[in-house]
Amino acid sequence: MRYGIAIFPEKKIQDTANSYRKRYDPHYALIPPHLTLKEPFEANEDDLKQIVGELRKVAAETKPFPLQIHKVSSFSPVTNTIYLKVEPVDELLKLNERLHTGNLPQEKTYTFVPHITIAQKLSHDEYSDVFGSLKMQSFDLEQTVDRFQLMYQLENGAWTVFETFTFGEEKN
Amino acid sequence: MRYGIAIFPEKKIQDTANSYRKRYDPHYALIPPHLTLKEPFEANEDDLKQIVGELRKVAAETKPFPLQIHKVSSFSPVTNTIYLKVEPVDELLKLNERLHTGNLPQEKTYTFVPHITIAQKLSHDEYSDVFGSLKMQSFDLEQTVDRFQLMYQLENGAWTVFETFTFGEEKN
Repeated sequence: MRYGIAIFPEKKIQDTANSYRKRYDPHYALIPPHLTLKEPFEANEDDLKQIVGELRKVAAETKPFPLQIHKVSSFSPVTNTIYLKVEPVDELLKLNERLHTGNLPQEKTYTFVPHITIAQKLSHDEYSDVFGSLKMQSFDLEQTVDRFQLMYQLENGAWTVFETFTFGEEKN
Repeated sequence: MRYGIAIFPEKKIQDTANSYRKRYDPHYALIPPHLTLKEPFEANEDDLKQIVGELRKVAAETKPFPLQIHKVSSFSPVTNTIYLKVEPVDELLKLNERLHTGNLPQEKTYTFVPHITIAQKLSHDEYSDVFGSLKMQSFDLEQTVDRFQLMYQLENGAWTVFETFTFGEEKN
């Protein structure tokens, strides 16, 4: 099965992201607004047990940290994905690093740029329009992150949460 | 905020449900296939802490149980919702009862009929067609359930998982 690890921001931030995603993100219906902590990876049931154990350890060692959004940015010219830029605080960068060490799959295709996608797969003209207007806007969104989620992907491409990992708590 | 509690069945059962939901369920994009354990309820942040504590207790006291699906059924004539009928094993009925006691909101609009919705809000003719063909079919789906999830609802009607509660584990 295909698994992924993400942070789902609180309702207010998700609602803000969805107000754009509804029109500009074809993945709108497949997953709620999220910050990807680890790119999708394949695992079988035996791997999964070990991975869940490791994720519990990671969560226990992680302290809650701030998630701050002040502006929109884009991966252009690599792709025309537009996203809410999440400030790369130390704890978030360390958590991303930690999720690629130990028994966890270590492949990393990209440098980690913390973001919440709000538009993707736009035509060139649409991209210019949307990004042109959004890049002028400032945002003042902030919350404390205290958990991440392990999800698996269904045949239709949608993601279901398998387990929540709460920071600073040791599960037996 | 509006919260709900559900079981997400394993991938195979979700994929089966989605093969129908895609065509027949307008809620297809709002939530993965699920078995509702507790109807949506309102709670503020203070309530939530207490509720999460109580849900951890409930999960710790619950033992994994089988989820079995053999056929499709319908809520007709009350509504024309069609669903995968989930066998009402004792542990599942007790879990539903327990989620309406103690500090948890106790309102119950309906008698608990364990089900995974695959079609709803169909026209009368479409309902007759779809149910007519599905009610002849037998299913042989079974898994062990060892967790439930607390979700909150976004402005667009979609649900995000807030926390997973694994049976038989005491979280500190």
